[in-house]
Amino acid sequence: MADRDIATDETTRLIASDKVEGTAVYNRSGERLGTIRNFMVEKRSGRVEYAVLNFGGLFGMGGDNYPLPWDVLTYETDRGGYVVDLDKSVLESAPKYADSRQPAFDEGYGREVYGYYGVNYPF
Amino acid sequence: MADRDIATDETTRLIASDKVEGTAVYNRSGERLGTIRNFMVEKRSGRVEYAVLNFGGLFGMGGDNYPLPWDVLTYETDRGGYVVDLDKSVLESAPKYADSRQPAFDEGYGREVYGYYGVNYPF
Repeated sequence: MADRDIATDETTRLIASDKVEGTAVYNRSGERLGTIRNFMVEKRSGRVEYAVLNFGGLFGMGGDNYPLPWDVLTYETDRGGYVVDLDKSVLESAPKYADSRQPAFDEGYGREVYGYYGVNYPF
Repeated sequence: MADRDIATDETTRLIASDKVEGTAVYNRSGERLGTIRNFMVEKRSGRVEYAVLNFGGLFGMGGDNYPLPWDVLTYETDRGGYVVDLDKSVLESAPKYADSRQPAFDEGYGREVYGYYGVNYPF
């Protein structure tokens, strides 16, 4: 990646999935919450249903996965990372899963997650 | 990745971006065309505007990038990869770019790419 122009990964309108993975996520207070693990894309529509935040654990390993609605994330160029307008305490009570205990990712789960963040579930 | 359950990466409805990157792409005749490099996601909507196929070059390095509309790709479990219903000759004439010469990725470019594959441009 090091020799690739940043323009390959991000334009005004678009962002590349492999640029987002590993990107830091902060809250409004500037606390580092974790990193984006990946996007979960709905196959039929090609829409990102969740950006998965990995949070907790040691040295970025083994934390829990917090699926976030796309609209919850804002990219801030100055910070070189995403910002979510959430307190750590809100995130700590949010829907999450360990790698070994993945949810069904069905519509019911989607409504639960989106509902927690107050976002309409569009799938 | 090796010790992660496949269920972490793919469910019936969703697919993880980091599973797709590097996945092989075949045509209907079973020829291996290349691999998926990444997704380009439209920031505002969270929709995948292109799945980028890397094709040509040596040993998977330095090939050209072919942005494909999402609907052009079909995942085939048996093959463990994506299938596109395109002859190699069609792909050879398709819109493409080298890493060092990225297009603007504006609406005009989107219409050109989607038009080439006969897909309505929804952005």
